[in-house]
Amino acid sequence: MSRPSSVGEVIIVGAGAGRPGFITVEGLEALRTADVIIYDRLAPRGLLRHARPGARLVYAGKAPGHHSMSQEDINDLLLQHAREGARVVRLKGGDPLFFGRGEEECLHVLRHGVRCRIIPGIPSPLALASLYLVPLAGRGFSSSIAFATGTRSGGTPLGRDEIRRLLLSADTVIFVMATRIYRDIVEEAASTRGPEEAVLVAEDLGGPGERVWCTRAGSREALLQRPSPPAIIVVGGAARWAMENAERYACSSSARTGRR
Amino acid sequence: MSRPSSVGEVIIVGAGAGRPGFITVEGLEALRTADVIIYDRLAPRGLLRHARPGARLVYAGKAPGHHSMSQEDINDLLLQHAREGARVVRLKGGDPLFFGRGEEECLHVLRHGVRCRIIPGIPSPLALASLYLVPLAGRGFSSSIAFATGTRSGGTPLGRDEIRRLLLSADTVIFVMATRIYRDIVEEAASTRGPEEAVLVAEDLGGPGERVWCTRAGSREALLQRPSPPAIIVVGGAARWAMENAERYACSSSARTGRR
Repeated sequence: MSRPSSVGEVIIVGAGAGRPGFITVEGLEALRTADVIIYDRLAPRGLLRHARPGARLVYAGKAPGHHSMSQEDINDLLLQHAREGARVVRLKGGDPLFFGRGEEECLHVLRHGVRCRIIPGIPSPLALASLYLVPLAGRGFSSSIAFATGTRSGGTPLGRDEIRRLLLSADTVIFVMATRIYRDIVEEAASTRGPEEAVLVAEDLGGPGERVWCTRAGSREALLQRPSPPAIIVVGGAARWAMENAERYACSSSARTGRR
Repeated sequence: MSRPSSVGEVIIVGAGAGRPGFITVEGLEALRTADVIIYDRLAPRGLLRHARPGARLVYAGKAPGHHSMSQEDINDLLLQHAREGARVVRLKGGDPLFFGRGEEECLHVLRHGVRCRIIPGIPSPLALASLYLVPLAGRGFSSSIAFATGTRSGGTPLGRDEIRRLLLSADTVIFVMATRIYRDIVEEAASTRGPEEAVLVAEDLGGPGERVWCTRAGSREALLQRPSPPAIIVVGGAARWAMENAERYACSSSARTGRR
């Protein structure tokens, strides 16, 4: 496809989660041919070795408590490099449009007349599913599934009534960025669905502290746990299937299926 | 990794959706080295050209109204080939554990002592998101998101009250395999969220009939439409963001962002 000779383009690439090999073929190809790669804290670092020699690598991640670059700065940086004629890859953890804010970056660039496209990535809950045999959705045990973040746009934590409403409407509910409200989730799960309801937690998936464990919402053990971020909290259908059918694979970071 | 010389393994691979290049790097590698590939109707056929010469290709898809192979037959076929020492890839459209029944196949194989692993894939709603700039989830406009199928395990369609409960609990609700209940969805969206609520529909994503369009739940136009399967129906947050910010990209199959 031709493009104006003086203007580059922006490609927002989902790096996926869990394993570096979970990036898409098209995503990797974009990485390999980029002039500039602007990457996130959550994007697997191992992927950067695929950059071509001479490519410029820019870190734009936000570590908790540290501000490296504001969203506005990142938007402008993408635009600036593209306007200089570069093929710019913006590498993000997981999927760019699944709690990834890729839409803001792409829209900013498009509104300034620069081409932008997005390549999807495997979000962390789907990586968890494949690595630990936790089927997120399937007829019978998990016909509906809901995803929510632990904090609302203003930064306030998700309320008890919102947690309850989600638990009452979908068979499986998955909370991301929600370790702060873990106790609320477990207590609401026990009260709306009964103390035996299954809860599965994955901490630091793909990282050095990867740990996956299962518990029952009403158990003493469930309340004693304190998951560390980043974590995924799965309640109901999918977690129940995993505990009942595949506990040795799903509920332990050491016993696995046929995994590397 | 070593394996017993006489027993093969099963790798369940999500082919992804939307574009053949959306398969993962690890998934493509598994395809390339497979002795046997058992593939689905929904898996992009273009991927099969990556099979190595001599690989055996077996079609196991279920066309509507035609039974080619039962789930039990597929389970047994996977096991049989692996026991003969083959490296067996089971290629499925989308993600194997997101309404894909990959868990049944993997569990069957594991229970018979054969290694099984799963490689995730991009589910069709995420492919839609990236291709048409429809951000599925993001703080502010779509803090929570729910996915549901149009039919329950017994084959009965999702009821009005279940549709309503989903619409009342999550900002964005995505229905898959739900063209039969399209009218119920639109009517419930108009009554629970108001006639201006945004609805976005993607038909045959990645196929020859790919068509994406937007409407308002309470409009006359919305009720005149009859989406054809396979389709994805997006109600609320994500569709609203797309209509308000990126209508020319999100609501038309011809105008696109920077896409091939």
